This record gives sequence, C-alpha cells and structure tokens, in this order.
Amino acid sequence: MTNFLSLADVTDIDALIQSGLAAKANPFADQHLGKNKTIGLIFFNSSLRTRLSTQKAAQNLGMNVMIMNVGQDSWGLEMEEGVLMNGDKAEHVREAAAVMGRYCNMIGIRAFAELKDREKDYREQVMHQFAKYARVPIVNLESATRHPLQSLADCITIEEAKTVARPKVVLTWLPHFKPLPQAVANSFCEWMNARAKAGHIEFIVTHPEGYELAPEFVGDAYVTHNQSEAFAGADFIYGKNWSSYTQYGQVLTQDPSWAVTMEDLQLTNNGKFMHCLPVRRNLKVADAVLDSPQSLVIEQAANREWSAQAVLKEILKHNG
Amino acid sequence: MTNFLSLADVTDIDALIQSGLAAKANPFADQHLGKNKTIGLIFFNSSLRTRLSTQKAAQNLGMNVMIMNVGQDSWGLEMEEGVLMNGDKAEHVREAAAVMGRYCNMIGIRAFAELKDREKDYREQVMHQFAKYARVPIVNLESATRHPLQSLADCITIEEAKTVARPKVVLTWLPHFKPLPQAVANSFCEWMNARAKAGHIEFIVTHPEGYELAPEFVGDAYVTHNQSEAFAGADFIYGKNWSSYTQYGQVLTQDPSWAVTMEDLQLTNNGKFMHCLPVRRNLKVADAVLDSPQSLVIEQAANREWSAQAVLKEILKHNG
Amino acid sequence: MTNFLSLADVTDIDALIQSGLAAKANPFADQHLGKNKTIGLIFFNSSLRTRLSTQKAAQNLGMNVMIMNVGQDSWGLEMEEGVLMNGDKAEHVREAAAVMGRYCNMIGIRAFAELKDREKDYREQVMHQFAKYARVPIVNLESATRHPLQSLADCITIEEAKTVARPKVVLTWLPHFKPLPQAVANSFCEWMNARAKAGHIEFIVTHPEGYELAPEFVGDAYVTHNQSEAFAGADFIYGKNWSSYTQYGQVLTQDPSWAVTMEDLQLTNNGKFMHCLPVRRNLKVADAVLDSPQSLVIEQAANREWSAQAVLKEILKHNG
Repeated sequence: MTNFLSLADVTDIDALIQSGLAAKANPFADQHLGKNKTIGLIFFNSSLRTRLSTQKAAQNLGMNVMIMNVGQDSWGLEMEEGVLMNGDKAEHVREAAAVMGRYCNMIGIRAFAELKDREKDYREQVMHQFAKYARVPIVNLESATRHPLQSLADCITIEEAKTVARPKVVLTWLPHFKPLPQAVANSFCEWMNARAKAGHIEFIVTHPEGYELAPEFVGDAYVTHNQSEAFAGADFIYGKNWSSYTQYGQVLTQDPSWAVTMEDLQLTNNGKFMHCLPVRRNLKVADAVLDSPQSLVIEQAANREWSAQAVLKEILKHNG
Repeated sequence: MTNFLSLADVTDIDALIQSGLAAKANPFADQHLGKNKTIGLIFFNSSLRTRLSTQKAAQNLGMNVMIMNVGQDSWGLEMEEGVLMNGDKAEHVREAAAVMGRYCNMIGIRAFAELKDREKDYREQVMHQFAKYARVPIVNLESATRHPLQSLADCITIEEAKTVARPKVVLTWLPHFKPLPQAVANSFCEWMNARAKAGHIEFIVTHPEGYELAPEFVGDAYVTHNQSEAFAGADFIYGKNWSSYTQYGQVLTQDPSWAVTMEDLQLTNNGKFMHCLPVRRNLKVADAVLDSPQSLVIEQAANREWSAQAVLKEILKHNG
Repeated sequence: MTNFLSLADVTDIDALIQSGLAAKANPFADQHLGKNKTIGLIFFNSSLRTRLSTQKAAQNLGMNVMIMNVGQDSWGLEMEEGVLMNGDKAEHVREAAAVMGRYCNMIGIRAFAELKDREKDYREQVMHQFAKYARVPIVNLESATRHPLQSLADCITIEEAKTVARPKVVLTWLPHFKPLPQAVANSFCEWMNARAKAGHIEFIVTHPEGYELAPEFVGDAYVTHNQSEAFAGADFIYGKNWSSYTQYGQVLTQDPSWAVTMEDLQLTNNGKFMHCLPVRRNLKVADAVLDSPQSLVIEQAANREWSAQAVLKEILKHNG
C-alpha cells in the first residue's frame, strides 16, 4: 500500500482486519518498523478520535508524530492551479505538500466537505493535490467524501462482535439540524458493499426520501425508506446523519422518528448499535440505546487505534 | 493512588514531597515506569506552566504525551446528563471520556470555574464526569475549585526553603480587576491545613471583608482582615487574587494597599514571597518583591515539574 | 555557541554549512546528543516550515519537543519593564522566560515585527528579553529583524547547487499587497555579505526606490533599482517581498513588473530561483518559474531541517 485514500488502495480487507486485531492483542510488537520515521498529521478541521487514535497508533509503531492545524498553527492553503494568489491563502499546496513531504515519511490529512459545490467536494481536491505533490504516502483522516480509517475500524468491530456467520448490517440515516457531510456514510457503503460481495455480510441502507447517497457509493445495496423494514432481524444498526446529496448540502427533514430508540432495537436480532461519534444524544440516538449493552460505540471508537495501526504498518512495510 | 483530583486522593503528603525532591535530584531514574504508557492532557482553558511541566514530567518518566485543546483542536463537550443535545456541544463527555480512556493510560484535565453558578462550579462536574466515564486515572490540572499539582509544588517549595522547623505561612489576597477563580487559594488552604494539623507549619489567611473562602477549604485556619497583623513574623507570604465566594464571582474591591511591596516584606521574618504565576507585576505584587532574593516564584514554578512527576509516578506504580 | 540569535553568534559559517550537509547525509548519527534534552518551541506567530523542520531536527537529534502557541495555548506576555500590568497581557516575560528555562534545555522563539514602531522592532525586544531571563540557549525562529535559520539553509542550498566557484547571488524585492517584515531580507544580506567578504560569492541587491534596507544589514552590497541589470549573468535569484524600512512598514508600490518570470531568468547564467516560502504564485513569482527545473524552493525548504539540526547540534555540544 502506498496511499490510503479509499478502499481502492486496499488489496486485502481481511488481511487488514486481521492486522488490526493483531495490533490490538499486541500493540508494541512492531516498534522497530517506525523507528526514525515521522508522520505529519495535518488538520483542516477539528478532530478528537482521529487525532488521538492516529497519533497513538503511530507511537505504538515507534514513529514520531508532528501535528499541524492549518489556519491556526499555520496559514490557509490554496488548492486551485494557475491562480493569481492575491486573496487570503498565503501558500499553495504545491509548495506546502512538497515541503511537508521532505520532513515527513508519510502524511495524514483531514479536510471535510464544504457542502457548497458538490462537484468540487466529490473531486477530492485536497487529498489528490497532497497525493500529487507530497511524494510520500498520504493517509485519509476523513476527506470530503470518505473516511476509510473509520470504515476499517467498523469492519474490525463487526468482525469482533458478530454472532452469526453472515450478519445483517443496516446503515440508517439519523435526524440532525445541521448539514453534515456524506463522508462516513459513503465510506461505510463502499466497504460494506465489498464485504457483502465477498459473502461476509448482508447490507441494507435506509433513509428518508431525498437522502439518496451517490450511486458510486450506494452501489448494489438494498435501499428502503421504511426504517422498520430495514431493522427487522438486523444484527448491526449503524446510525449516521448526512445532508442531502441530490439537493446538495441541504437539510430536508429533521423527522425525530428516524432517531434510534430501544423500541427500534427490539425489531432487531438482538442487534448491536454502532456510530462513528461524535453523537448528539437524544437528538440522533436515545440515551437508553447508547448506554445499553447493545451499544458498541466505545469499542468501535477504541478500534480506531487498531485500524490506524494496521494501515500505518502496511505503509511502513512497503515504503520503508 | 488512582485519581489525583484533590488532597483526599493522597495518603501520605510527606512521601509525595520526598518523591518530588527525589525526581528533582534524578529526573530520569524512573523512565522504565512510563515505557509504552500514554498520558492525554486535555485543556478546556489556557495553560503555560501546567501544560509544559506536566508534559515534561511525563517525558521524564518515559511516557508518551498527547495534548488536546477542547474547542480548538476539537469541539465542545456536553457535561449534563439526560439532555437533548441540540445546542453548540457536539459530543457528550460520556463518549469523549470513555474514548480517551481507551487511547490513554491516564488523563490530565484543566477546566476552570465559570464563576456564574457557584453550586455548579463547586460540584466539580468536569472532573467527576471524566473520573466516572474515562475508566483510567484522572489528574487534576486545575479544576473549578482546586489546583492540587500547584499545592504539592508549594509544599515542596516550602520544604526546600524553610529555615525554621515550623514556619509561619500566610495566604494573602491580592488586588485584581478581573474576577478570578478560588481554585488555587482553596487548594492551598486544603494542603496547608493538613500540613498545619501534622505540626509542620502554622497557617494564617488574610483578605478583605467579603472575600471569605468556602468553609470546607478555609477549615480551622486563623483568618484576619488585617494584612499587617498576618505578615508579622511570617516565613512565607503566599499571594493570590480570588473573586468573592459569598457574592459569587464578584470583584468587591481593587484596593491597591493589598498588593505586596518590600515594605510589607519588612514585617516578616525575612519572609519568602510565593505566587503560583502568572502574576501581574505592580498590580498584585511590586517589581521589587518579585526581583528580590526573597522571591521564590521561579523555583516554585520549577517545582511544578517535580510535583507532576511525583504524582504521575505514583499513579504509574499503582496502575501499571 | 550559546544562543543563535543572529550571525554574530556564529564563529564559523563554513563549519555550520558542513555540519548541515553531514546531517542531511546521515540524519540520525547524533541521537545520543539530545537524549533526555528538551527544546521548547514558542510561537508568537504562525509557522509551517519552521515549526515542522525545527521539530524534526530536534527529534533527529534524540530530543524531546514541547510546542506552545502564545495567545492560543497560553495568554499574552508583557515585554516592557516596570509597567503596571493592568492590560491584556497576563504574564511578564521575566517570569515566563525564566520558568520555560527551567523546563527546557533550550528555547526556540518566533516573534515577528509589528511594523508599527521601527525603533521598537529593531530593538529585538522579545529575543533579548528571552535571552536575558530564560538562562538557557535561545534559538531565533524568525524575529522582528532576522531569520538566521533560513539564511543558514540558504547558504547550504547555494553551496549544494552552485556550478561556479564564486557565484553571483542577487536578492530581488518582489511585489505584494500586504506589508511584510524585512527579517528574511535583512538576514539574507547579513549572511551573504559575510560570504562575499570571505570570497565565496558576489552579492547584489535590487529593489524599487523607497525599499532601501537598514544600512547595518545591506552593508557594502551593491544596490541597484534596475532589476534587469542585477539579473544579468546571475547564478542565483533570491526573491522576497518586504515593506519599506525608511517609510516604515508601508507598501509604496505593487508594481507587477518586479515579479520574477521566465523572461527574467533568461537574463541570468541559467540562474536558480530561491524563495524562503510561503510564496504567492503569480503575484510575486510566475508559476512557470516555480515549476521549472531552475527553481530550488523545495530543496531550500528541505534544507531548513539540516540548518536547524546543525544549530541545535552545536548548542547541544557546548551546553551539554
């Protein structure tokens, strides 16, 4: 693996899951791999889990970590080519990425969707510009359209918690008053479709009308606007809010009946609840669900450390 | 020791002072203790000494350090239970603390008093919520009502600098135009009362009327509104401003005669001046005092490294 | 070397250049020097290259690094002596520097010119106050009037890239709409004049009228207002914008003809283009120049790591 921008960079999901579980069992076994290697973590947006888990994973592997908040520790970066830079961006990504690539052995980048211009967001300009100019491996710490470190942690969590050979996994939209990116939902679809195709799970998506995800992500998944139908017999309920893709970045409804409650869980096969966090309690999910033994959200977040470690290890092995 | 939230978590102050002095004499003797251990330092408020000294102490012990400024590196955290989270806080402490507890072996937290609602501040919600949900040891980096790492450094400083067996220690209020928390003064009272009870010091508090500290902190200390009376024959003058506890969070006076000058020091037994810093020169204390050989403020701040190291070592030993 | 505030602290530029090149060839050869040593990096202003390259250099040398953004991680610092501190600065540099000096073996500081009061900026108050009160070596990470780590990296870059024994080096002013400090230009003059005096280079400065640099920096360099005359036969073109020194902090012209283009480079002896970065593309320099093989800007930025490592190593050796 050179870059880890999306599932397309992964040749063997199973091997990556097993590598994550091995790291969880024995976190410090590969410290020689990262000796005198440095990862730069570049944040265009706020972060809690990704910031801490990726830093921790790198340290487990013996790496040094340098963290930079763009626009706070440093100035804004211009991403467009060929422009006259007379605005508020003091440096071009061509220079910034190339320079960081000289100081770092790999670079992790977080840059959310702006939710204004769909075509622009879905071009994934920040990731691609960094991948083009940094000349070192790039790790996606959540981009405009994807969050693959989250999806790998989700795969690890399902692998650990499943009680049947081929569990039924449901992605459900949750209500929220703010427009949120589609990245986590997109990525989850991308990875779950691959898991379904390989026969490991059954995958279903449910959301209100108008919240259809991009076709390249939802793929062949069965989609229903009937949440109860989706939940029937489910082994895993994966909740997430996202803003509309078709009416890009809009909040079309805040219908509270889409929030997940204990009544909803009773429709499932003693189903486990998952969410990438942060989660707004009682807006998206009831306290009772998050505090029940059926909630996996903390274990799922804890697995972010092991998904990051599996990815960084893979990159270190192939770019030593 | 599991948590270090207040003096109540300490079984033997003398042992902790001696551990701090031993670390000062030989900072790197215990590096094996922290190998592959990580402390998370979570700041809800600004910090200079606490940030640097705790980080340094952890590194002296061989630990990794991860630092996060809440609301800057990440988003705000909801502390109340059972609420509908439709405001500006994107994550609940139940999740945030539990997740950090999975990435870190211990967590240090700074969260000042808001000085609006006394009952709320004195409940120490942030510390208690983290202690409840993180499931790893919590270190108080200054909370709404206490700053015990400072108080331990103060004990170490007095132990080093005392010239009589049972020195007279005076806590004096200082003038300031902004309302400041009572945390440092409270904690200092708590620790000095314990030292007095054990026969190590004599402890006196002096402040203008209306600045009475909470009874649970001031305890049996002798309190006078006559600063000169308090200073007479004192071995240590500990200066600090705090806002009113009774008229909560109010600035009742800025009387400049309460500032400490060289004339004041002449009332003492060649008394040493102490202050936790930062200190506003010539507002709270005269330049001449801070620049005189009688000032201990730099040594006192330097001892923050050793008080932190003593506490982290104790936690590492009992939570290996 | 104790401090590294300016060229005056350097006894042998050649040795420092060679030390930088040796570090570039073998980055981890001196890790024993920094074991259990800590550098504090204190930023009063934003930083990308300096932040990352100095951190990296310190880690290459086995040091621990503590980073603090003043006014963001902590509060503002008062630099003036003898004042009544009743404004927005909560702590005096006397205390802040002295305390940091107790936690750190050396301290790097970035503090830009304010461009309001020339006499004040050119006094270099922040650097001198830290050097006075910290009692540990101070490293200039760009001050009001100088950026010597940049100048050393520039020397290393010229040494690597020169194709003639005594190359002609030209510093040219570039247009910009914002008033920028003179620090990089000043420092470059200071170091290049020393290199010229030792016979290593020929040095020429070109800028529009009104942009004369301070006499103590421009020294004996040949200065012309005719950019084309300066560029004729040049081996290195070093571009930089600065605001007026004589009409202090003013932008007197934004004349776009001063921007460097490929046509300009054709006047040179296959001259290389250098710039300290960040650079605003097409405002100061054409895309074609920055993207041509004649541009050294990325290698120059990469050499910041090795200039920092040479300086930190020298300080470690003499202040072990």
